[in-house]
Parts: sequence; C-alpha cells; structure tokens
Amino acid sequence: MVSTKFVVLLLLRGVVSLAQKATNGDDDDLLPSPGSPDSGNPPVGSEPDDDVNPVMEEIFSSWALFILLFLLISALWSSYTLAQRRIRAVHETVLSIFYGMVVGLIIRLTPGHYIQDTVTFNSSYFFNVLLPPIILNSGYELNQVNFFNNIVSILTFAIPGTFISAVVLGVILYIWTALGLEGVDISFVDALSVGATLSATDPVTILSIFNAYKVDPKLYTIIFGESLLNDAISIVMFETCQKFHGKPAKFSSFFEGTGLFMMTFTVSLLIGVMIGVLVALLLKHTLIRRYPRIESCLVLLIAYESYFFSNGCHMSGIVSLLFCGITLKHYAYFNMSRRTQITVKYIFQLLAQLSENFIFIYLGLSLFTEVELVYKPLLIIITAISICVARWCAVFPLSNFVNWLYRVKTLRSMGVSNTNSMSIADEIPYQYQMMTFWAGLRGAVGVALAMGLQGEFKFTLLATVLVVVVLTVIIFGGTTAGMLDVLGIKTGCIDENDDSDDEFDIEMPRPVSLNASPIVAYRDEDPSTEVLSPNIAPVIGEPLGSSPAPQATSRLSLDRQHLRDTFGTIFKADSQWFTNFDEQILKPVFLDNSGGSPQPGQASDTSYRR
Amino acid sequence: MVSTKFVVLLLLRGVVSLAQKATNGDDDDLLPSPGSPDSGNPPVGSEPDDDVNPVMEEIFSSWALFILLFLLISALWSSYTLAQRRIRAVHETVLSIFYGMVVGLIIRLTPGHYIQDTVTFNSSYFFNVLLPPIILNSGYELNQVNFFNNIVSILTFAIPGTFISAVVLGVILYIWTALGLEGVDISFVDALSVGATLSATDPVTILSIFNAYKVDPKLYTIIFGESLLNDAISIVMFETCQKFHGKPAKFSSFFEGTGLFMMTFTVSLLIGVMIGVLVALLLKHTLIRRYPRIESCLVLLIAYESYFFSNGCHMSGIVSLLFCGITLKHYAYFNMSRRTQITVKYIFQLLAQLSENFIFIYLGLSLFTEVELVYKPLLIIITAISICVARWCAVFPLSNFVNWLYRVKTLRSMGVSNTNSMSIADEIPYQYQMMTFWAGLRGAVGVALAMGLQGEFKFTLLATVLVVVVLTVIIFGGTTAGMLDVLGIKTGCIDENDDSDDEFDIEMPRPVSLNASPIVAYRDEDPSTEVLSPNIAPVIGEPLGSSPAPQATSRLSLDRQHLRDTFGTIFKADSQWFTNFDEQILKPVFLDNSGGSPQPGQASDTSYRR
Repeated sequence: MVSTKFVVLLLLRGVVSLAQKATNGDDDDLLPSPGSPDSGNPPVGSEPDDDVNPVMEEIFSSWALFILLFLLISALWSSYTLAQRRIRAVHETVLSIFYGMVVGLIIRLTPGHYIQDTVTFNSSYFFNVLLPPIILNSGYELNQVNFFNNIVSILTFAIPGTFISAVVLGVILYIWTALGLEGVDISFVDALSVGATLSATDPVTILSIFNAYKVDPKLYTIIFGESLLNDAISIVMFETCQKFHGKPAKFSSFFEGTGLFMMTFTVSLLIGVMIGVLVALLLKHTLIRRYPRIESCLVLLIAYESYFFSNGCHMSGIVSLLFCGITLKHYAYFNMSRRTQITVKYIFQLLAQLSENFIFIYLGLSLFTEVELVYKPLLIIITAISICVARWCAVFPLSNFVNWLYRVKTLRSMGVSNTNSMSIADEIPYQYQMMTFWAGLRGAVGVALAMGLQGEFKFTLLATVLVVVVLTVIIFGGTTAGMLDVLGIKTGCIDENDDSDDEFDIEMPRPVSLNASPIVAYRDEDPSTEVLSPNIAPVIGEPLGSSPAPQATSRLSLDRQHLRDTFGTIFKADSQWFTNFDEQILKPVFLDNSGGSPQPGQASDTSYRR
Repeated sequence: MVSTKFVVLLLLRGVVSLAQKATNGDDDDLLPSPGSPDSGNPPVGSEPDDDVNPVMEEIFSSWALFILLFLLISALWSSYTLAQRRIRAVHETVLSIFYGMVVGLIIRLTPGHYIQDTVTFNSSYFFNVLLPPIILNSGYELNQVNFFNNIVSILTFAIPGTFISAVVLGVILYIWTALGLEGVDISFVDALSVGATLSATDPVTILSIFNAYKVDPKLYTIIFGESLLNDAISIVMFETCQKFHGKPAKFSSFFEGTGLFMMTFTVSLLIGVMIGVLVALLLKHTLIRRYPRIESCLVLLIAYESYFFSNGCHMSGIVSLLFCGITLKHYAYFNMSRRTQITVKYIFQLLAQLSENFIFIYLGLSLFTEVELVYKPLLIIITAISICVARWCAVFPLSNFVNWLYRVKTLRSMGVSNTNSMSIADEIPYQYQMMTFWAGLRGAVGVALAMGLQGEFKFTLLATVLVVVVLTVIIFGGTTAGMLDVLGIKTGCIDENDDSDDEFDIEMPRPVSLNASPIVAYRDEDPSTEVLSPNIAPVIGEPLGSSPAPQATSRLSLDRQHLRDTFGTIFKADSQWFTNFDEQILKPVFLDNSGGSPQPGQASDTSYRR
C-alpha cells in the first residue's frame, strides 16, 4: 500500500510539473504563448484568456483531463486493491476524496492558473454530466419489489424527514450567525437554504458499502430510496428558498412551498413514467430492434431527455430520470433486442461507476482549487454538529411514527382494537434506525446546490458546505462498515430477485432463464420471498447470541408464521390490484408479445427473444 | 417522410418557443431572473452572465442539451428510417447537417442568447469529447490484416497527399486574396494554415456509406486509413503553420516542419502502442478480471489517457489513440474477462455512433449560431473549387506513383528487368483513384482547427472553412452511393475476418469460436483470404459486361494464379518476420496463457477464457 501511494505521488508530481511547464510555456517551441513577442497580434479584448490560441487551450485542457482521468484510474485501482485484499477499514470514496485533495493541493501550489480553472467544481457540469448516469442506473437496477414494499418508510424519511432536517439545521445556523461571533450575518431564508443543501443525503458511498457487504435488502432499500428521493426534495426546497431570498419571510410561503413541492414531484414522476412507456411502445411498434446500435443509442438518449426535459420545465429531473429508469426496466427492457439489453445495462453501470468515483475526486479537488472560499472554523464545526442533530431529529421520531403506523395498521387489519395487547416486531427496529442515522452522510448534490447561494456570505457558506460534506463522507463513510458490525446488522444476504444479465461474470450463458426472472420477480405471488412481509420478523431482530429458549422460539416462530400468512394476504390485497392491472392490461399493451402467447409473464422465454 | 419531417419541425418549434420563454423569464415564477427587481442583489462584476444564478443556468443548459439530444434522436431515427426503407439517395449525415441548420436558424431567430451561446461549436469540446471515441473505435474495430497490407498506399496518400493538398490549396487561396477582390488580404502562412485545415478528410460519412454497402475491403481500408491519418497530419501541419504566423517564411522552415512532423508521428505511435501493451500486461499480471466493472472502466480510461497524454506532450493524440486501440484489440483483448470484452466493444461503438451523428448536427448548428462569422461568397466558391483541384493533384499523381512502385517491386522480385514487358494489374486502378478523389469530403476536424486561426480575417476564414466543409459533405457525401454504382465498384463484400462479438445480433451465442477468430485472422498464412495479395487481380477490374473471351479469361486467370502464388510468397516473406516475432515472442509475454498451453494462437479457446 505504502509503496503504491509513493509511486502515485511521484507520478502526480511529475505530471503536474510537466503541466506547469506547459502552462508557463517554458519549453513551448511549437506553440506561441499568448502575449509573447513571437505571436504577431497583440491580444484583443480585455481578458487575456479570451485570446488564448485554441490549440494551446487544447493542450491545457488535455493536461487537466489527463490529471482527472489519472485520479479516476487511481481511485478505481485502489478500489480493486481494497477489494482484492479484503481491506474494510478504508473505503474507496474516502480514498477518492484524499487523492483529489492531494492533487488539488499540488495544483494550487503550482503557479499556472489554467489547469486550476479547468478542474474547478462546476455545478452545471455536475448536474448535466455526472449526476444523470448515477440516477438512471439506480432506477434501472432498482429492486422494484423491495422498493414498493417499503414505500411508506421511504416517503416518510424522504419528505418530512428532509423537511425537518432542513428546518432544524436552518434554525441552528440562524441562531449561531445571529450571535455574530465570526462576523457572518445571514438571513433566515439563507440559513434555510444552507439547511436544504445539507439535507440531501448521498446515495453513492453508503450503497457501494451496502452492496459490497450485501446488507439486508430491506435496510438497503429504505436508505437507498430515501437518499435518492431526498436529493430531489432538497433541490426543490433550495429553489423555493432562493425564490424568497431578499424578501421578508411570510407564513403563507410555507403552504406555497408545500404545494409547489407536491406538484413538482407528481409531474416529474409522470414525465419519467410517460417517457419510459413511450420507449416501450416505440420499441414494440417499430422494427428498430433489427438495428441494435441505433436502438441502444436511442434508449440512452431518450432516457436522458426525460432528465433535461423535466429540468427545463422547472420540474425535478432526478425524479423523472429515476422513474424513467424504473419504467424502462419494467416494460421497455422486454421489447429490446438481446444486444441492446446487454449494451444498455453495461453502459448504465459503467457510466454510473465513473461518475460516482469522479464526484468524490471532484469534491476533494474543490477544497483547494476553489480560490475564493472563505473558511470560518467555528461555523464549520457548528454546522457539522448541527447536521448530526438535524438528522437525529428527523430519523428517530419518524421511525417511531412509521413503527406506530404499521402497528396500528396490522392490529386493525387483524381485528384487534387494543394496540398494546400484542408485541409486534417493529417495522424499523432500533438497529435500522441507528444505521439510517449513520447513513446520513452528505454528498455532491449539496455542494452543487450551494454554488447557487447568493449574497454577501456566498463563499463562506459554500466553504462551510464543502468542508462539512467532505467531513461527513470521511467520518460516516469511513465508519459505516464498522457500524454494521457494531449494530449486528445482517450482511451477506443474497437477493433472490437479483439480476439476470450477469451471465458473463460466471462465463457460461444461461439462455433459458434470461428474460424470465425479472418478470417472475415482479409477480409478488411467491410466498417464499422474504420481502413480501417486510414488517414481520425482521432478520436482525435476534442476533445469534440472544435468542430465547427453544420452546419460546418455537412458539414465537409459529406466531410469526401465522402473522406472516396474514400479512401475506393483506399485502397481496394491497398490491394485487396493480399487479393484476399491470399483468392483464399494461403489459399486453406495452410489451411486444408478437410470439402469440397471451400471457407475457410465462411466455417470456419464447416471445421476448428474437 | 414528409409527415415525419413536419412533425419534427412542429416539435422543434414548440421546444424552442418553450426554451425562449425560459430564456426571457416570462413565466419564470420559481426562479429569479438575473437583474430583475425581485432578485435582491444587484449584479456584481462586469459580465451579466457571470452572475446568473446557477439554478437558472442549469435550466438554460437543460434546454440546450434537450435540443441537442433531440436533434441526435431525430438523426438516429432518420438513419433507422432510411435503413428500413432502403433509401439510398439521402445519407444520414446530410440529414444531420440539415436538422442542425434548421434548429440553428430557429435558435438564431429567437431573442434569447443563452441557448445560442451554449450550442455554439467549441473546439475544445470537439477535440476532448467528440473526437476520441470515433478514433478509438476506429482503431479497435480496424481490420488489422487489411490495414497493414495496404500500408504503403495509405501512408502515400496520408503524408505526401495531405502535404500536396495543403500547399496547392494554400497557393490558390494566397493568389486569390492577393487580387484583393473582396478586401481579404492574408499572408502566405495563413493561406497555408487554411490549406492544412481543409486537407483533413473526414472518416465518418464515407465509412458509414462504405460499411452499409460493404464495399471492397481494400478500397475501404485505403480510404479509411488515409482519412484517419491525414487528420493527424493536418493537425501537425496547422500547428506548424501557426508557429510561423506573423513571421517571414523561410526556406529552412520547410525542413524544420518536416522533421517535427516525423518526430511527432513516431513518438505518438509509440505512446499509443506502449499504453496498449501496458493495459495488456496490467490485465495479465493482476486479478482485476475478477471485477469486470472496474476492469471495463480502467480499459476505457487508460485508452483515453493515451489521447490526453499525447496531446499534452504536443504530440498527436489521434495517432496515439488509433494505435492504442489497435494494440488493445491485438493483445489486451485476450486478457480481458468476457464481460469486459463485450462491454468495451459495445461502449466504444455506442460512443462513436453518438459522436459521429453529433458532429454533423453541430456543424449544421454552427452555420447559424456562430454570430461573428463573415461570409464572403466569392472566396467560398473559390475555396470549394480549389479543394477539388488540390485533392485531384494529390490523388492521381500519387496513385500513379504507388502503381509504379508496385509494378517495379513485383517485376524485380520476379527477376524481370524490363518494366514494360508484362501487363500487371494496377495496385490502385482508375476506379479506385476516382473513388478516393470523391471520398475527399472534409469534416469537423477542419472546422475545429479553423477555430484556432488568428489575425484580422479570422472570422472570414472560419466562415469559409465551415461553409466549404458543409458543402463537401452535402455534395460528395450525398453522391457517394451513386458514384459507387457509376464506377462499378464491387459492393456487398463479406469480410471473412470480421468480428467475433456480434453473436447477440444473431441471437445464439457461438461460444467455441468466440476468442479464436481474431487470432486466426491475424496469422496471415491462410491462402484463401483475398487480402493477402492486394495488388493482383483487383476484384473490380472486370465488370461483368466487359469480360474478355473465355480462352483469354482462362489464360489470364492462370497467369493471375501464378502471380498470386508468387505474391503470396513475397508478402508472406515481408510480413512473416513480424508475425513470427509476434506469435513467438510478443504474444507469450503480453497474453495471459495461464491455461498452460504454449501456443496462444491455437489455445485461445481454452486458455483465454475463464
């Protein structure tokens, strides 16, 4: 490890000194330096950068891109090394940030400014290039059964949770700045804006850890769903706050904001679903599958269109893209040629992987390459503590609310009126609550939003957000694996509904079950899948050491079996209408069952393949 | 067709009017417009754009990207429609340019300037984002046997050909501007710079037509190789000219430039090959193939690094990337996991396809969105005529030179001293020469280079280059298919050495021959492959109608058989040393033959697969 790091540092130093040379034009025989005597024309216009020879600009941007790609390669290589040596103490995102910081520092210390300008964090770049692949891949790879089974918990954490977190954080920050200790004085709306930016939890780090450890799918799904949706919610909250920037806050603003949010969410969801269905119908009713190269491009492009269209209409592109991804996998996937199925899946994965790694490198770089930042140490410490408080205020009360809700619902459906007569396992037990709290590290969405802050203290607030985000990633991200052990959360769960396109990982194709399994995973009727009764008998409720006496266990398991059956029925009834509607109305319309079979579910082996 | 076009136009009009609304901020309830009364802070700084709220900026860039992606979707859809209905008169690149022009005109006519600024052609964007995937994919998909068999013709057209073309064009332009008819007065070095930008022929259009028609592989390879390499050469020539901009031209500059070029080409080639070999060794000596997601990312990133590294060192990124792609396919491919083999291939293809389409849309857009262009009609007409003259001066004399060279070489190797005693078929017959001339349409590389022009008449020259490039694409690109018929060039050739990863196109995997065929394709010993004796009996030499009498044919074919055998031996001898060296020394070192077989060629079925 040490020797690798040394080599990396040496290489970086070499690269940067080369880059520096290029910037200074020392050995620049080929190209004229701008303003140097041999370039015939004097610079026109006020800014010297404007007149840099494009060929030279290309050289600079080549070096900047070379450095970024090199960092990306280092991060991926570290990720491989960590996986290969089974090192769990350090996580790759922490290393990515660290690499970014080291290179950022070197770039900062070298005299040239062009490379520094190029590698600076750019929010438009983040929103338009880096974020979409991650969201799209998340939607596409989402385990849809788990997601919709836990939709109540997810929405509770995502909507009121983000709101509580933003308000608590905003209030603390407002009070602190009102004390005037560091000369920072911001309005309440600005404090709330910062609260909103720091309430977007990051889906990347936690999920990569959870994926690596194969954490219990339920916990995974709750945290995943929350972190996906609360990005969208904090974006909308931030934008709403910015609207009131510089205006006196009114009480009616609250309702206006809420209404705006509900509308945005619904419309965005509809845009995403409609575009997904459009792709399915397009693939069904044309012969484009005969040209798989064009087909793959079109699927990718149309999915991206949902994001840009939604953003362009002031809706939430993240929500649209997420649901577009889900719809694509649910319907359009089965109308694609086999080659497109594989291409789309691998491309989404590869782009997401690159984006994820890159975002953290970018964050690390920004700490040193953003020259205008103003660091206020006390404010940073207060903010870092506040986000833990805010997260605490959101997670624990809302978990109790969800538990209460499920208990009431369960007992009512069983005809029991006294809510305390039976001990029913919690929907979200304490370990899960603690893990959800711990998983609340902040990511690049917050930083990207914070670049939109306005006013006198813009750069102070941006610096605060940036440092706090990096701190949470290092502290919480670095300790998540340990926390899983401490809390005794079940790991190594193999998801039965998992994935159908990984046949190349195990070398031999499995032609028969290729297309069938995702459909089977949908049908919700198989009593053997654990996920169907998520609020009964949570797997981690009983760590091995603390199990009750054998008789008790047996009685308990009988009880649970009973409850499970009951619940199976209830949840089937709840979700059956959509499953039926989907199987009998939607799928025949959206899927290409030209093979002649009237049952798309069973017939997938023959009819969806061509 | 007409109705589709109408719908597309309607949609575009709607999109743009929406975008325009967003730009004007008419219905902008959510976000403060910059400088409008409700945004509390007055703009800071001199440039209004600098202070645009990033959230708003994101909305604008969303619309700009939406429009670009929409154009891309339209172009791909048209491409599908053309393929589906077997329409050959119109080519997709012409449609791409046309769509770009229509939308560029609409954007130009709408008042908002932000979207116009965003969609403007940006040379750094072109060189760093759009060009690399095309070059990498070209190298990776290159038929290596054909390429190296025709290397003499390719290099002749690429190096002296581009030089002749640039000089002829430069001289004509210099004389024309010296007449002073349109008030344009440029130095000889500037005229030569324009000559260099307009000497880069475009690989995209012609090759997509040739691919669609399955043109004779030899002609395909010559034109493909030339257009790939002359991009690199015109870039180096242009940069050399720019170095002398504003200085008096000296005769010694010629030798300096030539030396610089030779050095650049060699070093770039070595960088590319070394990086490709590095990847092969990396994959061989690590276990990274157990993590195919990381592996795919690394292969892609390292390939890109060769481009940026080479550009950063003032070398030619195009040459490096091309040879990196070739080396990756030749060695690294066999060390990859199966999943990575598939992922890399599909991703290269998809990115190349998107880039290709996008470049032409971009060119079309630029005609209207580049506001500073100055159009001089006479100059444009003269330049358009001159590039045909320049191309003519390059292609026909050099073809005759190549033919002479091969004739001398053939006869000498057969021990015949009198060069006129036997009629030997031309290496490049007249039809091929004419087609090579016709395939000399100019592409986006020229436009990207022209953005680097300096001096008073920068925008006049840029406008001229842009219009001429679009004209050549429309005229030559639109008539290539017809020209193939007129010249009677053989189409529908199925390349025996073709590709091994397309099993998903035909639905059933062919597991046994998967890895074997590319190696077999390399071994150069199979007498059945036509490509081994490329200068004997060119396929199109005898159109069906004009064949000689049966006896003559029979005698001729015997003669040819004899010649072919002789040539087979000669060429085998020529290329045998490298094939042997490659098989016996390089492949055992670079390829991972841990399966235990000492012969990587034959053992590929078992040893390269895991």
